[in-house]
Amino acid sequence: MANELQGKKIAFLAADAFEESELMKPWEALKDAGAQVELVSLEDGEITALNEQELKAGKSIRVDKTAEEANADDYDGLVLPGGVGNPDKLRADENAVHFVRQFFEQGKPVGAVCHGPWTLVEAGVVRGRTLTSFPSIQTDIRNAGGNWVDEEVHVDNGLVTSRKPDDLDAFSKKLVEEIAEGKHQGQKPTVQAEATPS
Amino acid sequence: MANELQGKKIAFLAADAFEESELMKPWEALKDAGAQVELVSLEDGEITALNEQELKAGKSIRVDKTAEEANADDYDGLVLPGGVGNPDKLRADENAVHFVRQFFEQGKPVGAVCHGPWTLVEAGVVRGRTLTSFPSIQTDIRNAGGNWVDEEVHVDNGLVTSRKPDDLDAFSKKLVEEIAEGKHQGQKPTVQAEATPS
Repeated sequence: MANELQGKKIAFLAADAFEESELMKPWEALKDAGAQVELVSLEDGEITALNEQELKAGKSIRVDKTAEEANADDYDGLVLPGGVGNPDKLRADENAVHFVRQFFEQGKPVGAVCHGPWTLVEAGVVRGRTLTSFPSIQTDIRNAGGNWVDEEVHVDNGLVTSRKPDDLDAFSKKLVEEIAEGKHQGQKPTVQAEATPS
Repeated sequence: MANELQGKKIAFLAADAFEESELMKPWEALKDAGAQVELVSLEDGEITALNEQELKAGKSIRVDKTAEEANADDYDGLVLPGGVGNPDKLRADENAVHFVRQFFEQGKPVGAVCHGPWTLVEAGVVRGRTLTSFPSIQTDIRNAGGNWVDEEVHVDNGLVTSRKPDDLDAFSKKLVEEIAEGKHQGQKPTVQAEATPS
């Protein structure tokens, strides 16, 4: 089973102040399953994690491609790590939001953990979907038309979500399964981009 | 005019990872206008600012009262500083959210800057109101029924909001005016607490 993602290429989309474990653990799990992984961010260079308990910087990692350059056509799935400052930056960037929305329009698997689902709200792809997240953003997910649940990991037609670092083993396991399955028709947004929250 | 807030007592509600200038500048401005100011937070002790550009801790300040102990009856107004991690913690705490909602139910002036308005979404007091914020949370404010505007400072019947640190002089000036005026009938929520986003 070590090569179930052989030939698959997965994008991780993140910015500064990401939660280190929520990027690194799924990254290693997908590589271990045979996938090629790339880091997409807002600018070239490096992004740096934030330890939110200690209010200090963590690991820095190299960006492979900017959201402006990247195209979902080139990937088989997307992962959105958490950290509260990270999605706050992504959702304010139209290239990043468009990149996220492309995966849903193409029916490709997406994993989002902790505050990662916040960017899904901005992309207008939450309506009618069932998902979990860090509990602090549950109101934003409900207000965006999503059905929020409190579960270690929830899978809804190719959308894999978890709440926090403690859930990462379950998250990575389901993520590998959904990516191995390929496209999911149920990922496609029911609302057109133009009609999403204005 | 230096004592226009003489006899007024104002609560600042914040948690770790607050934006330093967004707490300190209005704090000094309200004190300069004669108000007594108190810091309310989630726990006793100190809270520490986060410099989000440099991903490192800033100033620590002493907490006067916890949100569990504090009661809006004892204050004439409320200020919610920003910093993305700060409201993320506040909105997950039911005492903090209840404390915020009390000010609206009592028609008392409230100022919120940057990501501070995020806690207003959780308190269910945004519907039908016009406000600004850091642009990244505009979708959450709209999804909660608010009318989001991009202005240095916006005043809506006792609700004073601004976008970012550069707006703080304008924010503090309007905040002093609104607090000096006292209660505003238009602050009272149109929707009962039980009926706000579940």
